[in-house]
Amino acid sequence: MSSICKGDNSDLTEERKNATFDTDKMAAVIYGREEIASRRRQLTESISRIHELAESKPLVFMTREEKIAESCRKLEVLSRHWNQTPFNRDNEEDALHIYREVLGMEGHPLALHDTMFIPTLVAQASQEQQEKWLGRARRKEIIGCYAQTEMGHGTNLRKLETTATYSPDTQEFILNTPTITALKWWPGALGKSSNNAIVVANLLIKDQNYGPHPFMVQLRDEKTHIPLKGIVVGDIGPKMAFNGADNGYLGFNNHRIPRTNLLMRHTKVEANGTYIKPSHAKIGYSSMVKVRSRMAMDQGLFLASALVIAVRYSAVRRQGFLEDKTQKVKVLDYQTQQHRLFPSLARAYAFIFTGFETIHLYSQLLKDVDMGNTSGMADLHALTSGLKSVVTHQTGEGIEQARMACGEHGYSMASYISEIYGVAIGGCTYEGENMVMLLQLARYLVKSVELIKSGEEKKLGPMVSYLAAKGGHPDLSSLNGYVTAFEHMARRQAWKATEKFLKLMETGESREVAWNKSAVELTRASRLHTRLFIIEAFMRRVSRIEDIPVKEVLTDLLHLHVNYELLDVATYALEFMSSTQLDYIRDQLYLYLEKIRPSAVSLVDSFQISDMQLRSVLGRRDGNVYENLFKWAKSSPLNKSDVLPSVDKYLKPMMEKAKL
Amino acid sequence: MSSICKGDNSDLTEERKNATFDTDKMAAVIYGREEIASRRRQLTESISRIHELAESKPLVFMTREEKIAESCRKLEVLSRHWNQTPFNRDNEEDALHIYREVLGMEGHPLALHDTMFIPTLVAQASQEQQEKWLGRARRKEIIGCYAQTEMGHGTNLRKLETTATYSPDTQEFILNTPTITALKWWPGALGKSSNNAIVVANLLIKDQNYGPHPFMVQLRDEKTHIPLKGIVVGDIGPKMAFNGADNGYLGFNNHRIPRTNLLMRHTKVEANGTYIKPSHAKIGYSSMVKVRSRMAMDQGLFLASALVIAVRYSAVRRQGFLEDKTQKVKVLDYQTQQHRLFPSLARAYAFIFTGFETIHLYSQLLKDVDMGNTSGMADLHALTSGLKSVVTHQTGEGIEQARMACGEHGYSMASYISEIYGVAIGGCTYEGENMVMLLQLARYLVKSVELIKSGEEKKLGPMVSYLAAKGGHPDLSSLNGYVTAFEHMARRQAWKATEKFLKLMETGESREVAWNKSAVELTRASRLHTRLFIIEAFMRRVSRIEDIPVKEVLTDLLHLHVNYELLDVATYALEFMSSTQLDYIRDQLYLYLEKIRPSAVSLVDSFQISDMQLRSVLGRRDGNVYENLFKWAKSSPLNKSDVLPSVDKYLKPMMEKAKL
Repeated sequence: MSSICKGDNSDLTEERKNATFDTDKMAAVIYGREEIASRRRQLTESISRIHELAESKPLVFMTREEKIAESCRKLEVLSRHWNQTPFNRDNEEDALHIYREVLGMEGHPLALHDTMFIPTLVAQASQEQQEKWLGRARRKEIIGCYAQTEMGHGTNLRKLETTATYSPDTQEFILNTPTITALKWWPGALGKSSNNAIVVANLLIKDQNYGPHPFMVQLRDEKTHIPLKGIVVGDIGPKMAFNGADNGYLGFNNHRIPRTNLLMRHTKVEANGTYIKPSHAKIGYSSMVKVRSRMAMDQGLFLASALVIAVRYSAVRRQGFLEDKTQKVKVLDYQTQQHRLFPSLARAYAFIFTGFETIHLYSQLLKDVDMGNTSGMADLHALTSGLKSVVTHQTGEGIEQARMACGEHGYSMASYISEIYGVAIGGCTYEGENMVMLLQLARYLVKSVELIKSGEEKKLGPMVSYLAAKGGHPDLSSLNGYVTAFEHMARRQAWKATEKFLKLMETGESREVAWNKSAVELTRASRLHTRLFIIEAFMRRVSRIEDIPVKEVLTDLLHLHVNYELLDVATYALEFMSSTQLDYIRDQLYLYLEKIRPSAVSLVDSFQISDMQLRSVLGRRDGNVYENLFKWAKSSPLNKSDVLPSVDKYLKPMMEKAKL
Repeated sequence: MSSICKGDNSDLTEERKNATFDTDKMAAVIYGREEIASRRRQLTESISRIHELAESKPLVFMTREEKIAESCRKLEVLSRHWNQTPFNRDNEEDALHIYREVLGMEGHPLALHDTMFIPTLVAQASQEQQEKWLGRARRKEIIGCYAQTEMGHGTNLRKLETTATYSPDTQEFILNTPTITALKWWPGALGKSSNNAIVVANLLIKDQNYGPHPFMVQLRDEKTHIPLKGIVVGDIGPKMAFNGADNGYLGFNNHRIPRTNLLMRHTKVEANGTYIKPSHAKIGYSSMVKVRSRMAMDQGLFLASALVIAVRYSAVRRQGFLEDKTQKVKVLDYQTQQHRLFPSLARAYAFIFTGFETIHLYSQLLKDVDMGNTSGMADLHALTSGLKSVVTHQTGEGIEQARMACGEHGYSMASYISEIYGVAIGGCTYEGENMVMLLQLARYLVKSVELIKSGEEKKLGPMVSYLAAKGGHPDLSSLNGYVTAFEHMARRQAWKATEKFLKLMETGESREVAWNKSAVELTRASRLHTRLFIIEAFMRRVSRIEDIPVKEVLTDLLHLHVNYELLDVATYALEFMSSTQLDYIRDQLYLYLEKIRPSAVSLVDSFQISDMQLRSVLGRRDGNVYENLFKWAKSSPLNKSDVLPSVDKYLKPMMEKAKL
C-alpha cells in the first residue's frame, strides 16, 4: 500500500524514496505485532476485490437517508462474505477493521449490535436467556442496541428516570417514561434500525426502587418492523457528525414485558416479587474502563487519519520560494507548517502506544480481579478517565490544525478532515464528559496527596508514587531529565490544588463548595498527570523497539514530543526553570521539526490507512490531487443539472421582473 | 426581546431578575449607539411579522439544494418588501442584519452580489461602464459574483494563471484556463446562481503580461441561465459549512469578451492594444484592510451567538448538588463551566469593541489617504493581519468550548453551535491564511525593532512605539500594571524573534531561510502584539462608557479578560514574574468568574440576537428546551416514516434469511 507506484505524483515519490525506514516494519510497531499489521493489509486487499463493497458515491454527497441505505446495502453484501477467507467474523479486531474500511466512521445500523447488545447479553443474561436470545442475535435474526442515557441525564446512571414496575399478578414489568426528560435519548441504532434493545430502567417492586437494571425489550414487530404498542421510538435528528447512525429516542407508555426479560445473570426477581441481590456490586464498571482504555487508540487513529491527509497534501502542494528561486517550495518545508503537523504526529503515535499499554493494563487487571486482587482498579480507572479527556481534546486540536494546514481545500468536504473532526470530537462528550472525567482523576490525586500527608505513602498506587518524591533542578540533557521536570510540575500542581481544596474546607466551606472552588486548579493537575503518563508510555514503547531505523526515527519523534509538551506547559515551570532552559527547549523543538521533515510522509504512510478508508481526495496515496478534486466536484449533487430548479422558480422571475 | 415573558423557564426568569444593568443600554454599548441597537430591534420585530419569511423547516434538516431553494424563496419575498418601512435597501448595516435574520449564516445566492460584485463595479468600472451595468446590477436584472481565487492559488494574486489575451483584430479579450490549477475555485455564488462575474485574469498584450486585472464576464444566458459556450462553470461540492452557498468553479476555453469589458476606471487598453497604466498602484489593497477590519466584529458576533446558546442552556440545565441537597444545581454554578464560558464571553465583547475601533481607524485612514497621508497604512495593515488571525483562532476555540459546555445536546444540530463553528472557523483560512497573516504582521514588527536598533525609533508607528520602551517589574495592582506586564512580554518576544532572525542571517543563511527558521518564534511575537492591542481596545471602550451599572459589569469582565489573558501567556513571563504573582492572577481569575456569574445571562441577552437568527433549540430565549427538543427531533427527516425504505430493502430480508 505504501509502495511507490507508476503514475504517482512525483513529489510524493521523492519523499518516499528518502525514507530511512521500512513502513511495514513501522506498521508492525504501530499495531503491536507484524501479524496484526500484515493481517490488516490482507483484509484491506481482499475487501478491495469485492466490487459490491465500493461506495456507490462519496458519503459526503449523501443525505442521512442515503448514508443509512448505503450502510444497509453494504452490510447485506458483507453478510454474504463473512464466511469466506480471509474474513473471520468472530475476530473482533478483524470486524472493526473491515467495518472501518467498508462502512467508514459515520456510524451504521449494526454499530451497537456487535459492540453493546451482544456483549451485554453475554455479560448480564442468564444461561437460559442466552439460549433464547444470543444465537438469534449472533445470526442477526434480530438487531439490537443498548438504551441507557436519557434526554435529561447523560452518563449519570443514578439519575435515570425510566421505570420498570413489577406486577406480580401478571408476572410482568410495566415500563414507563414518567417525564419528557426521561425519554431515552442518543442510543445508537435505536431510532430506526433495531427491533430489540437492552433498556436500562429503575426496577420498582412494591414501591421500592432497586435502582437501574437492564431489560431485554422488543421494540418493533419482527415482520413489519412497526413499533409495538406502548412504544414511542424515532431518530433524534441530525448531529455534528455520525449522521450515518440513527441515534434514537424511546419512550414507554405502560409497556409490558415478561418478568423473565430482566437480565438475570446477577440479579433475580422471583415470580412473587422477591428481589435477589447480585453477589458483587461493581458490575458494568469494568466495561466502562474497557471502553475508555480503547479510546486513546481510537482517537490516535483519528488523528493519524487527518495527518495522513495533511502531510501528503503538504508534500504535493507548492507555494512560494526559499533558497532556490526556480522552483516553488513544498509547503511541508515551512517551519510553521511543520509546527502545525509534526507535534500532532508525535501525539498520534504516543496516543496509539498509550492505548495499547492501557488495553494491556486492562486485561492484566481483569486477571487480577479474577484472582481476587482489585487493588489496581482505582489506579486504572483514574488513569483512563484522565486519558480519555486529554487525548480527545488534543486529538480535536490536532485534527483542526491539520485541516487548516491544507488551506482552503481543507475546508472542502473533499478533504474529509472536518468529518473526521466531527466524529473524533464527539469523544470529548460521550463516555463521560471531559471535565467530569478530569475531576474523577483529580479525586484520586487528592486522595493520594492526602495519603502522603498522613505518612501513608506506601499505600500509593504505582502511577502516583512520584507525588511523594522530591523534585530537583531540571536537567534537560536526557529524556529522563525531561520526565523529571515534567514530574515536578505535575507534582507541584497536584499538591497546590489539593492544598487549596483543603484550605477552603478549613475555612469552613463545605466539601462540595470547596471542591467546586478548586475545580479548575484540580483539572489542571489532572491534565499534567495524564500528559506525564503519555510521555512515559511513549518512552517505554520506543525502548522496546528492536529495528534500528524504526527506533531512530521514533526516538526523534519522542524528542520532538517531550520538547513540545514541556514548552506547552511551561507556565507551571515559573521559578523552577530558567529562561535559558526554556530557550534551549525551543531550539530543540525547532531542531527536531527539521529532523522529522524527511521522514514525515513515510511516518504517515506507516499507519497504512487505505484510500478506501481515508475517503479523502486531498490525502490520496498517489498524490494526484487536483485532477481528482475537479472530478469529485463535477460529480457532486448540485451539478446534476446546469440550471437549478430554484433558479428557474425564483431567481429568473426575479431578474425578469426587475427588467420591467 | 430580552424582557421576561410569561411561560418562560423559571430558572432563566430568575437570572434575568437578578440583572444589575439594563440590557438595552448594554446593547447600545455593544453596537456603538442607542440608535443602532434600537434600529436592530425594530428590524427584527418587523421581519417577524412577515410570515412568508419564516423558515419552512429548520435549515439543518435541509439538503444543499433545499437550503439554496429556501434562500431563493426568501430573497424573492424580501425583494417585494425592501421598499416598505422600516426597510432601507441602501443601508448596508440594515441589509446585513436583515440577511442574518432571514437567511442565516450559511450563505445564499446573492451573498457576493451586494458585497463584492457591485462594490467592485463602483470602484473599478469607468463612468460609461457603470452606466451600462450598475443600474442593472442594483435592480437585480443580473446577478453577479467576484471570481479571483484559483484551485492552485489562494489569495496570492501574483500567482494567478487565468489569461485574458488581447486580440487587436477583433478588439476582444480571449479568456483561457491554461491548466487545471488555473480553474477559478471557491468564489461564492459562482457555481449556480450568478449569470455574470468579475473575473480577475492576467492581461496579456502582444506576449507581455501586465498582471491581474478585473474583467466583466457574462457567464450564462440571461434567459435560459445556461452557461455560454467556452465557459465551464459549476459548484465545487459540499463544504464543512456554508452549504447554503454555491461556491463555484469556472474555466475558460478561448472565451471571447469585448475589449470594453476590462474594468477601465484605473487601467485602459486602447483599441490598438496600447496599455495605459493606473495612476497609482495600491488599488484593492485598502478593500482587503476593510474586510479584515470587519472580521473582528463578525467573529465576535459568531462567538456571541454560541455563548448565548451555551449560557442560557447552562442556566436551564441542572446536574448534581452543591450546598443545598434538596435542589440540583444549575450547571452554570460550576467553576469549570464558568471557566469554559466566561473568558470567551469577555473575548466576544473585546472582539466586537476592537472591531468597531478598527473600522473607525479604517475610515480615518481613508480620509488621511485622501489628504495624501498614507503613513498610517502600514500600521493598520499589520494590525488587521494579526487581528484576523488571533480573533478567528480564539473564536473557534471559544465556540467549541461553548458547544461542549452544553454536553451531549451540544453535539446535536438542535444546538446549531457546530454550524456556527463551521462558518466562523472558515475565517482562519479565507481572506489570508492565519499563518501567512501572522508573518505579515511579524514583518512589520521586525522592521520596527530594526528601526529602534538603528536609533530611528521616531519613525515607529503609534501601535508599536511600546517596542522601544523599557520594561520594569510588573505591578498587578491596577489594569495599567497588567498592560505594562503584557507589553513587556510582547516586547521581549518581538525582540527575541527579531534577534534570532538577524543572527541567522549573520551566520550566512539567506534572508528567506533565516526567516523560515525563525517563523514560529515570529508568529508568537505577532500573537502577543495583537492580544495586547485587544486588551487595550477593550480598556479604551470601557473607559468611555457613561452608564454606571453597564460600566461596572464591563469593568468586571475586563478584569476577567486581563487575568485570563496574562495567565494564558505566562510562559513568556519566566524570570520576570514570580510564582506568587502568578498565583495572585489565578485567584483573581476565579474571583472574577464568581463576580460575573450573576450577570452572565443578561450579558448574553444584551447581544439581542433573536431566536429567528439564533436557530437553536438549546438557546431559545424562553428556555423551554426539552419539550422543543423532542418536537424538533420528531419533525426531522428520518422520522417521516416509521420504517425506512432501506430497512425494508436490506435489513428485513437479512434478518429473514438468518432465520432459515
